[in-house]
Formats: sequence, C-alpha cells, structure tokens
Amino acid sequence: MYSFLNDYSEGAHPEVLKALNDTNMQQTVGYGMDEYCQKAKDVICQRIHNSDADVHFLVGGTQTNMTFISFALSDYQAVIACDEGHINVHETGSIEGTGHKVLTHPHVNGKVTIEMIQNILDSHSDEHMVQPKMVYISQTTELGTYYTTKELEYLYQFTQANDLYLFLDGARLGSALVQSDAPSMYDIAKNTDAFYIGGTKMGALFGEALVIMNEQLKKDFRYQLKHKGAMLAKGRLLGIQFYTLLKGNLYEEIGAYENKMAQIIRKAFMDKGFSLYETSHTNQIFVDLPIDTVRSIEEHYLVTHIKKINSNMERIRIVTSWATSQKEAENFAQMILSL
Amino acid sequence: MYSFLNDYSEGAHPEVLKALNDTNMQQTVGYGMDEYCQKAKDVICQRIHNSDADVHFLVGGTQTNMTFISFALSDYQAVIACDEGHINVHETGSIEGTGHKVLTHPHVNGKVTIEMIQNILDSHSDEHMVQPKMVYISQTTELGTYYTTKELEYLYQFTQANDLYLFLDGARLGSALVQSDAPSMYDIAKNTDAFYIGGTKMGALFGEALVIMNEQLKKDFRYQLKHKGAMLAKGRLLGIQFYTLLKGNLYEEIGAYENKMAQIIRKAFMDKGFSLYETSHTNQIFVDLPIDTVRSIEEHYLVTHIKKINSNMERIRIVTSWATSQKEAENFAQMILSL
Amino acid sequence: MYSFLNDYSEGAHPEVLKALNDTNMQQTVGYGMDEYCQKAKDVICQRIHNSDADVHFLVGGTQTNMTFISFALSDYQAVIACDEGHINVHETGSIEGTGHKVLTHPHVNGKVTIEMIQNILDSHSDEHMVQPKMVYISQTTELGTYYTTKELEYLYQFTQANDLYLFLDGARLGSALVQSDAPSMYDIAKNTDAFYIGGTKMGALFGEALVIMNEQLKKDFRYQLKHKGAMLAKGRLLGIQFYTLLKGNLYEEIGAYENKMAQIIRKAFMDKGFSLYETSHTNQIFVDLPIDTVRSIEEHYLVTHIKKINSNMERIRIVTSWATSQKEAENFAQMILSL
Amino acid sequence: MYSFLNDYSEGAHPEVLKALNDTNMQQTVGYGMDEYCQKAKDVICQRIHNSDADVHFLVGGTQTNMTFISFALSDYQAVIACDEGHINVHETGSIEGTGHKVLTHPHVNGKVTIEMIQNILDSHSDEHMVQPKMVYISQTTELGTYYTTKELEYLYQFTQANDLYLFLDGARLGSALVQSDAPSMYDIAKNTDAFYIGGTKMGALFGEALVIMNEQLKKDFRYQLKHKGAMLAKGRLLGIQFYTLLKGNLYEEIGAYENKMAQIIRKAFMDKGFSLYETSHTNQIFVDLPIDTVRSIEEHYLVTHIKKINSNMERIRIVTSWATSQKEAENFAQMILSL
Repeated sequence: MYSFLNDYSEGAHPEVLKALNDTNMQQTVGYGMDEYCQKAKDVICQRIHNSDADVHFLVGGTQTNMTFISFALSDYQAVIACDEGHINVHETGSIEGTGHKVLTHPHVNGKVTIEMIQNILDSHSDEHMVQPKMVYISQTTELGTYYTTKELEYLYQFTQANDLYLFLDGARLGSALVQSDAPSMYDIAKNTDAFYIGGTKMGALFGEALVIMNEQLKKDFRYQLKHKGAMLAKGRLLGIQFYTLLKGNLYEEIGAYENKMAQIIRKAFMDKGFSLYETSHTNQIFVDLPIDTVRSIEEHYLVTHIKKINSNMERIRIVTSWATSQKEAENFAQMILSL
Repeated sequence: MYSFLNDYSEGAHPEVLKALNDTNMQQTVGYGMDEYCQKAKDVICQRIHNSDADVHFLVGGTQTNMTFISFALSDYQAVIACDEGHINVHETGSIEGTGHKVLTHPHVNGKVTIEMIQNILDSHSDEHMVQPKMVYISQTTELGTYYTTKELEYLYQFTQANDLYLFLDGARLGSALVQSDAPSMYDIAKNTDAFYIGGTKMGALFGEALVIMNEQLKKDFRYQLKHKGAMLAKGRLLGIQFYTLLKGNLYEEIGAYENKMAQIIRKAFMDKGFSLYETSHTNQIFVDLPIDTVRSIEEHYLVTHIKKINSNMERIRIVTSWATSQKEAENFAQMILSL
Repeated sequence: MYSFLNDYSEGAHPEVLKALNDTNMQQTVGYGMDEYCQKAKDVICQRIHNSDADVHFLVGGTQTNMTFISFALSDYQAVIACDEGHINVHETGSIEGTGHKVLTHPHVNGKVTIEMIQNILDSHSDEHMVQPKMVYISQTTELGTYYTTKELEYLYQFTQANDLYLFLDGARLGSALVQSDAPSMYDIAKNTDAFYIGGTKMGALFGEALVIMNEQLKKDFRYQLKHKGAMLAKGRLLGIQFYTLLKGNLYEEIGAYENKMAQIIRKAFMDKGFSLYETSHTNQIFVDLPIDTVRSIEEHYLVTHIKKINSNMERIRIVTSWATSQKEAENFAQMILSL
Repeated sequence: MYSFLNDYSEGAHPEVLKALNDTNMQQTVGYGMDEYCQKAKDVICQRIHNSDADVHFLVGGTQTNMTFISFALSDYQAVIACDEGHINVHETGSIEGTGHKVLTHPHVNGKVTIEMIQNILDSHSDEHMVQPKMVYISQTTELGTYYTTKELEYLYQFTQANDLYLFLDGARLGSALVQSDAPSMYDIAKNTDAFYIGGTKMGALFGEALVIMNEQLKKDFRYQLKHKGAMLAKGRLLGIQFYTLLKGNLYEEIGAYENKMAQIIRKAFMDKGFSLYETSHTNQIFVDLPIDTVRSIEEHYLVTHIKKINSNMERIRIVTSWATSQKEAENFAQMILSL
C-alpha cells in the first residue's frame, strides 16, 4: 500500500546516493575532519555570506536538538517552545534528559509568538524558577506552517532584546525555503543564534547540518558532539550528502517538488470542500474528514491519524517528499474527487 | 598517501552498498520497525540460537555504549573497565555524562581480569561509594588482543556470582570471531548480559547491533533509544546493512581478510626483529620502532603515533580493514624488510 | 513589621530546640545510623502500623522530591503533576535536572484528578514520547486545599490500576492531618507508594521524613541519598527533631494551632465579605482584595502578592505557623474588620 | 565507648548553639537573604579583604562540591583530583552524577602536584577525551596533610597559566589555618577561583560557606543552588552559625584545640615508636599498629580501620574535634604509653 505517512519512507535522493557510491572507496580521515565536510561547510558559508559560521554535521534531529540545546544552556536554564514543538512532545524527554525544562505555551497556528515568550518571561522572575534562555522554533512547524521573513526578524529582535537565544529546527527547511515570503538561508542565519538544515527529511539517507552563528556558542562544540555520542566515525558520509544537496539547487528543488506533490492532493480536498486544518503550501497536509472518507482512503493509502475531532470526523496527516510518486499523488487526488 | 590509520577510512563494503542501492526506493515504516530490521534480527537470533534476544540497531559505538550502560545502571551505580577501555578514555566522558562513574584498573594485556574486578569490589563496600554493577569489556580490545572462550566463560561466571552485568563492546568483533580459540557469537550470547556487533569498523557505512540477553534489561529499551537521540528515522538503513553482513559469512570473511592483511605487515616487523607490543593475530598492530624507521614509514603511509617509548623509540599503530589494499599491505611489508 | 509571608520565618518549635540542646554533647555515629534516627523511624512505623516501611531523613523539600523521584523513575519516564505543583514551578527545574519531564495539566482546586491523569496517559502512547510513571501530589496543596481520604483512596486505586507510582509531598502535612475528612498518616501510608512528612514548615529547624511503602522502591535508597548530596553528616539532628515532633501529638498540635491562627484571620475576611480564593481550613489563606486594602495591610504586615486580578483587585497569601503570635493574628483580624 | 571516629560525632559548639537559641523566635526572610547571612558574608569579605567575593551557604560538603563543580564546568569538561580526593572516592559518584568525569592520579602525601596535573593535561589533547578544566584540592587533605602557602601559590600560578580553575574544599579548613606555614583565608582567596569554609566538621551543626572569587563563576549561582536542591529554606541557620564562627577567632580556636588534642595522642604513638603514616600536626592521625594494639585500643575507644598493612599490622585513623574531651585524649595517650 502506498505510504503518505512521512518524508522518510525511502532511502536517499538518487543524486545523494550516487555521490556516496562515487566516493565509497576513497580514504578520508574520520570524525568530520575530511575534505567533503569542508566542502559542505564552504557551500553553507557561501549561502549565508558568512565565513565564520560554525558548521557541524549530526545524524538525526532529536540528537541535534539535545546536543545543541544542552550545550547552549546552563544547568538551571530552560528552553521555550510551543506545546506542539517537537522537543516538547516527540523526543521522549531527551531535552529533559540533558537536564533542562521545556517551557511551553499553546501554539498560534503552529508557531511561537512574541506574546507567548513575554508571558513566560513575566512568570519566571526569580531563582526559585528556571531561567528561560532559549526559544526553539521549527521551520516548517509541526503543523506545516512556516515563519515569514518578517515574523522571524521580529522574533529575533525580541529574543536579542531579552537576552534569549533563538534556535531554529530546520528538519523540513526545504519546504519553507521555496516560499516567496519565507526567510532564505541567509535570512535565517542573520536572524537566529543557530539553526539546522535538515537532511533526513530532505533527501539525505540521514543527517542534519547545524549552523552556529552566535560567537559565544561556538567554542569547543566538537567536544560536546563527542560527549553526546553524536560524532559520526565516517563523518564524510554527512559531508558528501550535504555537499550534494547544497552545492547547487538540489535542496530547493526537493522542497519545491514535495510542495507541488502536496498541492495536488490539497487541491483535491479543497475542491471537495473538506476543511484543511491549515493551508500553508508546504509538504504536510492536515485535513479533517468524515470517518467514512478516512476508511476509504485507507483502503489504498497509508496516512497518519492525528486525532478524533468528534464522533464523525477525524484529522489525518498526509506528507509528501522528494520520493513521492507524482502518479500516486494524482491517483490520490482523483480518488478524493471521486468520493 | 595510503592510510593505515584505522578501519573506517572508506565507505561501505561493496555488498553492503549494493544492498542499500537495491532497496533505495522501497517504502518502509521508520524507526527500526521495518522488515529489514526484522530480517537482521532474525539472522542474529539464529546465529545465537535464541529467539528471545532483544536486538536493537544504533548508529555508532559511543552512542551504543552510553545508551545501554545508562539504561542498565541505577543513578548510583558504576561500570568497571580497564584503564584503556574505550568508555574510559576515548568517549569524552559520555558515560559520566549520563551520570555514572567508570571504575578502572590497569589492564592486563588489554583485558579486564577477575582479580581486577575483585579488587574493585573489595574497595567499594558501602553507600559512601558508588556501587559497581557492570563490567565492560571489548572484543577485540583496544590493544588488539581478544578474550578466549574460556576467559569469557570465567568472567561471566564471576560477574554472575557477584550480581554484576557483563557487557561486551564488539566494535571490532569480526576480527576476533575468526580466531580458533575465541568465542563464537553463540558463545558470547551465552556468556554476557548484552553485547554489540560492530558495523562501523566491519564494513557497514555505520551501525552497531545491540543484543540484549538478560531478561531484566529488555523492557522499554526503545524508549531509552529515543530518549538518548539514538533512534534512526530511516532505521531500515541499519537493518539492510546488518542483514547483508550477517545473513551469510560476509562478517567473518571481512574479519579474516583484515586479519590476513595485518599478518602480512606483522610478519615483516617480526622478520626484521622489531618488538611487537602484542602478537594477537587481529587487525591492529602495535609495534615499537626506532624513530628513524617511523620517519621512513611516514614518507609513504599514514599510521597512528601511540606514544614515545624513549628518546629513540616510538610505538605506532597500524590498522587494516575490509578495504585494505593487498598490494599496499605487501608494499608496506616489503618496505619494512628492505629497511 | 510582622510577617505572615510563610511558615518558615522563625527557627524551631521550642520543644524541638530543647531536644537539640539536650542531646548536643552526646556522641553518635553519623549519616543517619544513630539511635535517634532509629527512634524516629520507630514512631513513624508505629503510626502507620507497618514495621517494614523504609524511612529516610532529608534536609529540604526540593531535595527530597528530586532525590526520590529520580530514584523511582527510569531515564525515559516522567512524573505527572498539576500545573501549580511545587516540582513544576518552584524548584528551578530540579526534577528536569535529574533527567525527567514533569507532565502537567491545569489543577482542579489545587489538586490532581483522575481525569487529568487519564488525559495524560491517553496522549502518551508510544516510545516517541516520555512514559508517565508517577503521580505527584501535595498535602496540603500549593493552594491550601487538601485531598480527602476518599479522594486519596480513589487516586491510589487508579494509579495502582495503571502501573503508576503515587508520591505525596507532605511539606505541610500537619495542617491537613487535623482535618476530620483528611487521611491520617496511616491512611496515607496505605494509599501511596511513598510520601514525606514535612518538618521545615512544621516546627523543625529543617528536615523532611521520607517514608517508602512500595517494596520495589526500597533497595539501596541510601546510595541514592549520598549520590544526590542529600545525606546529612550529623544525621542525628534529623532523628532528634522528628522523634520530638512525632513521638506524641506535637506534630498534630502544631497543625491545629496554625490552622486556628489562620481561621482567626480568614473569618475576618469572610465577615467583611471579601472573596476567599479557597476556603479550606488550612494554614494558608488566599484572598482577593481591593488594592487599597492590600496597601493598608502592608503598612503593618508582610504578606505575599500572588497575582493581580484586575486593575482594582489583587490576590494575596497569608500563612500562619506554629510560631504565629495569637495576638498578631487577632490584631490583623481586628484591622480587617475595622477597614 | 568514647569515639575518635570523626569530627562530627556531637552537635554544635556551645557558642554556635547559643546563637541559634538566642535568635530562634526572630522572624527573617528565607533562602539566605536574611540579615544573618549578610553579616556572615561581611565577616568573610573582611577576612579576605575583598568585598566582591560571592558567598553562599550550603548544608553539606558533598552537596557543595557537586553544586559548584557542575556549575563551573561545561558538559564535556572534567575535574582533576588525586586518587584519595573526597569527590573521587567518598561521594557515591555525585560529581559523575552531574555529568562530569573525575580525572585522577595517585596522590603525593595526600596532595595534588603540578606534575600530576601536567601529566593529565598531556594525555588529554583532543575532543575524543574530556577536557580538564578544574583542579580540586582539600585543605586539610584526606590524609591530614595540608598545602603550604607556597604550594598553593605555585598550584594557582600553574592552573592560571593552563586555563584551569582551582577549587579548594575546606571541610577541615580550621585545622590548617592555624599552621604557621599554611595559607590564611586571605591567601586562599587570592590563590583559588573558589573555596569553601567548612562548618560541619568545625563546630557548626551543619553548613559550608562557599566563596567564589573568579568573576566568571559568580553569575546566577543562586539559580544553581536551588536547581540542585541546595538552598535551605531557613537560610538564616547557616548565616547565624558562620557569623558566630567567623566574627572573631572562634573558628581558629577550634582548629587549634583539635590539633592540640590530636598532638597529645600523636606524641604518645611517637614516644612508643609507632610508625605514623603522616606527621602533619592536624586533627587526623593515621598510624600503623600491631593488630594486638588495635584490639587493646578498641576495648575502650572507637577508631576507624583504614586498611590492613600485613598479617600483623593495621592502619587506623583517629580524629579529634572541638568536642574532644581533653581527659579522654590524655587517657588515650596514657593507655598507649602503658602498652
């Protein structure tokens, strides 16, 4: 049965896999000190017009979040996220596992807002409570929305003014990068203290590229990487993949493609008058459907159940990726329209 | 310059890479619940004649050690290792990072002995000191030696009798498995509470297969995996690789090949009368050489400096792998003989 | 200015201080292994009709919570509390500091309810989320309310049925013990996995007596005590104080006295028609007052500002204790009545 | 039976206890923000001629060590101690419990030396190993020896030159302060990054005064205190005790007295020709005795068995304190002489 469960159901984008094949028998030094990691760092630095950025390659998203957040925070400091934030819900307490509280507030359209941060700051006033020190956001968010360039700039101005770090989780960054009102990689670099460029969900076999902009958060990060079990022996594998994704436009092409595939399906839902939980043109679709419709879909496709809305309606999630078959997307849309 | 620095200088064994290529566009569920992980688990269970073993796939060695050791120990418990143990020296305090002391004693031929464990037990008698609860060993050891079947059996009897877990780090397990007096995978499963089958240094792109034998250490380990950032989204990548390595004899063939390559070089050192620090027939060679000889070698080859012995002598390490060129090994040997 | 800020503004109850004076020059062994700790344990065991309870004495409440909760939970497990729970708000992330998430839900009258626990269980279904394993409640609660015997019994039945531990923080236990519908110490012991009898806020210089009922949570707790820096060298100080408080009725007399002092003040607020945020007859009063009234009070007394209700009203907290001067309580009441 | 087991067998020095009695019914604010804590801080600042020192009061030594060391170190950093260091052996892994490795080397006369630090620095060269960042020493040491002023100055110069913090555990500081060649409190403040003035073993009921000199280690330490469960509700108890001990010469008088009591006993051993393990004139005596002699002693006194030297000899420890009865010390000496 064809799966729209997520954007990591297949292996790697063919170009990425080819690069791994082509370099397989070359000898390199280990642990990310090789020439491919250097080349990948160079293309990232070029994209953000900043040769001083500190770039590190890690294997997965939870690992990247826990390794960096625990590096940036002192023992008694906390990170702010919205209630739907990945670090709050879907990482089995890995941030708390490194000793830090995740302070949350109900999301607004999947996002963290300045009001919500202010509210948390106002209620954390002395040493009997944790000290908020970082704001964690995702681009795209867990609900498929994204921060516009303006929103990101305002957030960063606010966090700067309040002595907070701003950290952006870009597990699905490509899906946002190609939106006309969303920040470019250069904009993100200018308006965060650190961010990561997702690979796992964007065509790599695995891997996330952490980019540290804040000078105070750069020193000795490689020690932290190793300390948290996050330094890959054959680090080159990450360098090769990110160099392939980022040296030209492949990363953005993947983002555009998966968004286009999602749009084929989203349009069908809209044409049939179904209620979309959000309407961002990214690669995740959240739609509320009659249970019978969900049943029909599930005869042919794997989709994710998000929650029961009421006795007749359910919310499901459909995710597209670089690997989504256009034919399957069209068939899916056709099926919806024919209901 | 040709590198004998380590056994992870190249990508993956061609058969492993082929399997990744062949399956690349298949859809599977994530996080290690796919059919390839199941097949890899099945071949491991067959090899150890035990269908109840709990098998999990992780990305790297430090990650596997810290995730499992912290899972098995209570807050106040410690793990015993020899001073050269990987967890003691080369993991940037990752075990301590999870809250646990590593209790050490000088190694005997790279190994942990019963006497050394007894000595530590004798000096940890009450609640003002940590409680030793696990013994960590490596096969092969950091010095290229290995535990014989008898040695492992005695160790396990001793740890069983003293309410200690025995955990075997098999990062380079293949190099030991093919020794006639070394324990088979079945022997290891019978004589440890848990062990891992190394992939990273044995022909995989990356990956270690943790095998938990002790019933008390099985419950909820997948929570721990995720909690420590060690659950790979595309878990299938690990399943595919370990299935390829272990379904037939590929894993042992790799072990035998790398040992054979090492022996070509080791024999040259012995024929020239150089002093080998140890003489196990595994894939690591430690040899004490005049500094001039080291200089000559380094004109053509990358090797690891271990330590200065005195003003004239240095100890170096040479490592072979599945990827070692036989021609380069022979050239190296020839060069030594011609000195 | 006379303080109604809290119940730890003075030193120790005179009888407690006398006992410390009387025993000062006696020699005892350290770390809680002395005869006074044994006597204190014995009177606790007698009160709960259970000679197998595991009793330990710690210095403070945050320390007791973090030491016990981290002892009971595995790495990936979480503790459930209401949003106002002390461990959630007022312990500077100490529970998270030991690696564990605090899962919260808005309180109902200061309390945790079965519905709220069920709701959290329902939304934590797999290994991508923390595993709820303990429910934390306080008696009295942070809002001065208390669990009735029936409520505690239902909670315990529910936690038992759902494989959760129930842990009761009794920092202000005495104020609840003397309520006719509240559980006795015996009832609490029967209906929790562990609880602590507060000393710091109940007449001791300092100290909390942790009572572990669940057999599985007893082994090696003294190691945990020391590991968390919570084992007092002169442990006798805790034994002497708890023996004094608990050998007769002193503990309950203190609870009754502080409640009576609070009632003098509470009655004045009620007689004047002010809105009490809660009406439990415990030693904490939460009352919403016009800002002018708060100003008048603060000319003579120290009270705690809880929150602004609106532009005209504020909520304040008044706390009484064993040390509260009856004359000051009556003066305070008189002042309110004369407004 | 009279106990020479340790220096915390009794309660508090009579003057300390009197101060607690005298202030018992005064109201103060909590958590160390009261006037007594301020007065104690003032006298400490006067003694070290530095009004910018950051002074905090904690309950016990293990708590002080773990709270401060984890505050000062980043995740991947380690603390250096000698093998006999209290943090290495007798704190049940509490430092590791906060995530940090303790790097050790065999002691020299109970002390850490520059050579030993250099040796550890030399073998910790890259990010695959922990990064040494602090040196931990005790004054007096676990073996009753002490650092001279010159030794401390050299150590500090060395740690400064190598970007290491120097932290001095002064659990038994008074016994050293009265030695003519030992550093004064002023000298210690000038030659460490932080130190603590012990109370528990020096006449207080409990308590240690942490003095932070290094500007970079001062910010937000009160958050850390609370986070680690180390902030006493009735903080005044610590202020009152340290003010009493330090406002005049009481602290030094206690040190001189306990040393004098030890000397009475030490002299008897020397006169009888017994071999003292060390000969510093502090309050701990380590002596190697025939087992028969130990037996005789134990008919009348409690002493600590340190280790078996051989089949005929044992090493025991005798500790004196402010509370040691001069008559008992003299009787003990007489008993030795009459053997």
